[in-house]
Amino acid sequence: MWVLLTLPVLVGRILIRLPCLVLDRTRLNVNIARMRTRASQLGVTLRPHLKSAKSVDVARLAVCALNGRIAVSTLKEADYFANAGYRDILYAVGITANKVAHAAALRRRGVELSLVLDSVDAVKTISARAAAEGVDFPVLVELDTSGHRSGVRPCDPDLITIGREVAKSRSLRLAGVMAHAGESYRCTSLAAISVVAELERATAVEAATRLRAAAVPVSQVSVGSTPTALFARSLQGVTELRAGVYMFFDLVMAGLGVCKIEDIAVSVLTTVIGHRTDRDWLIVDAGWMALSRDRGTADQRIDQWYGVVCGTDGRALNDVLVLSVNQEHGIVGARPGSPPLDLSRFPLGSQLRILPNHACATAAQHDSYLVVGRDGRSIEAAWPRLNGW
Amino acid sequence: MWVLLTLPVLVGRILIRLPCLVLDRTRLNVNIARMRTRASQLGVTLRPHLKSAKSVDVARLAVCALNGRIAVSTLKEADYFANAGYRDILYAVGITANKVAHAAALRRRGVELSLVLDSVDAVKTISARAAAEGVDFPVLVELDTSGHRSGVRPCDPDLITIGREVAKSRSLRLAGVMAHAGESYRCTSLAAISVVAELERATAVEAATRLRAAAVPVSQVSVGSTPTALFARSLQGVTELRAGVYMFFDLVMAGLGVCKIEDIAVSVLTTVIGHRTDRDWLIVDAGWMALSRDRGTADQRIDQWYGVVCGTDGRALNDVLVLSVNQEHGIVGARPGSPPLDLSRFPLGSQLRILPNHACATAAQHDSYLVVGRDGRSIEAAWPRLNGW
Repeated sequence: MWVLLTLPVLVGRILIRLPCLVLDRTRLNVNIARMRTRASQLGVTLRPHLKSAKSVDVARLAVCALNGRIAVSTLKEADYFANAGYRDILYAVGITANKVAHAAALRRRGVELSLVLDSVDAVKTISARAAAEGVDFPVLVELDTSGHRSGVRPCDPDLITIGREVAKSRSLRLAGVMAHAGESYRCTSLAAISVVAELERATAVEAATRLRAAAVPVSQVSVGSTPTALFARSLQGVTELRAGVYMFFDLVMAGLGVCKIEDIAVSVLTTVIGHRTDRDWLIVDAGWMALSRDRGTADQRIDQWYGVVCGTDGRALNDVLVLSVNQEHGIVGARPGSPPLDLSRFPLGSQLRILPNHACATAAQHDSYLVVGRDGRSIEAAWPRLNGW
Repeated sequence: MWVLLTLPVLVGRILIRLPCLVLDRTRLNVNIARMRTRASQLGVTLRPHLKSAKSVDVARLAVCALNGRIAVSTLKEADYFANAGYRDILYAVGITANKVAHAAALRRRGVELSLVLDSVDAVKTISARAAAEGVDFPVLVELDTSGHRSGVRPCDPDLITIGREVAKSRSLRLAGVMAHAGESYRCTSLAAISVVAELERATAVEAATRLRAAAVPVSQVSVGSTPTALFARSLQGVTELRAGVYMFFDLVMAGLGVCKIEDIAVSVLTTVIGHRTDRDWLIVDAGWMALSRDRGTADQRIDQWYGVVCGTDGRALNDVLVLSVNQEHGIVGARPGSPPLDLSRFPLGSQLRILPNHACATAAQHDSYLVVGRDGRSIEAAWPRLNGW
């Protein structure tokens, strides 16, 4: 089937040219089923985060009901998924006044759009702006699990003030609290991920408990990141689990041990455009434009450089990596310390697939997925994906 | 004028939402004029590389005549610029058989599309494929200046064989030779850039001389990268200069000393979405999705982390940097070792601009430019840009 790709190929309405982003539907389905089972075992509702996939076609597989809960990272995603019928959408990035009109337009269309904030200042500004727009929003208070980014600590008196200010507002209503243990991406063992997951859970539950003790009602207690979702031992007191990259997985997740390399569902299909015989390098037409500059495995136990190289069937070749990238050139060679690559196995014009360090970043470089079937090669469909704001 | 940006704003036909890519037209024009003067002083024809800008509107300023010479990094760019009337296009990435049909379609539309190759194997394959398509292509032989990527060394006997094979082909004709001193990006002084520029020139001229001595006629002798173009002392024997990022410049170029920070014409406009008072951090809505993961200044004398932060007028704030990025979150703080940021100067909802490490990579995260005028603030236009393959 790859012979089709010797020319630009129209799949449905999408023109595929190389390099392109390949999505293995079988692996995607297995990954989605795994997280669904986890949520069910943990007794929580899954809210898939669609910031990685940004695709209605992927959402249809990952979200149980059409109006099912989803999370997004931009209001453009919220528009896109609202257009496809999704009605319970969490915009999981702190809201500011200049985005309220956009959010209000979604509310008027009947979308239950939840907003996130973490300061009294934000409550006041957003409450006033929402009132001016004549709409109301459910709100989650963003919590801080480890000081890595945004959020209020559960013990911070501001938490109660924020909760009370939201409760007083006529244009905001407190839906709950939200924690995200982004630090799970930097763990060095599954045991450490379980510890971080418990910290994430405890943070969210403590915040909910404190708010309730202050007579501020809280219904949603939302936590999640792919590693903590997969390795939490208990989510007692939690109502909702958010995760996104689990649908695809990537080399960072494989390096953490939360998936195997064979589980990674996205890769970049590329062509060999040159041989550098004196260095035992292949030159391919996937540079940072197709792969992204993400080096998420650089600090892991096994550095995968700019990506693991596979055959066209999606099976990883032993110790063959993208060692360096320019805009439209990738340099493929053996892992440093390994025997050199036998270039004769990869003639000019032959094709390879490259597994990404970070699926969200690599997918963001493309505007569609070439969907392949069970054999890892046959083309089943092409799905559009969203980018931008 | 920025007050417009408190809402999504329609500029012409383009809807601008934050974060967005800002292009300072005054700086752009100055940068373009500088390179044009250089080419004129050096006595060579400038072939602007449009892989950075990917915009017809920028091309109109950067390319003297409508049918003027340009270089591109993808065939999609070639299509796009051909549609806008450009007729002399160098596709500056090694061609492979699976792209010949696409290239042939451009040839049939009357585009003088030059192809690049660096092996006898490629000559044979591309020659046969072009013959099957019933078209002919001008060809440049890619040269290697320092072993960093693709290309033939001028002393390699393969150079003559390639030249003779092209001369024998009825579907290819030898237009010339092409060198690109990508290693100039890693120089640590302007003197070193001048040395690399001379190496680039000498490589191209030596290759042309050897081919001519072997009775293979060569007309184009093409060299270029922004640093070498700006700091070459002589381009004797060279006919054509290629460069692209000079139109915008970026922090990597400023770190090399080839431009000043105040020359950088592109930046990302972002909103403050949170304060982290215990760490003296601002949280902004420009993460790696808006900025890219490029850390090109990491190995330079002054590490600019993920970007230099400016006010909305585009003037750099003293030692304020993007220290870390997630997908849609950037963490802004003082340069390590500097006094902490006074967060009260940057209220929630206020706006900042961020200068990129690598303009090509940051621009690639956006599908349009918000063009601002002489004051660095007033909106003059919105220009679309191309991405993908």
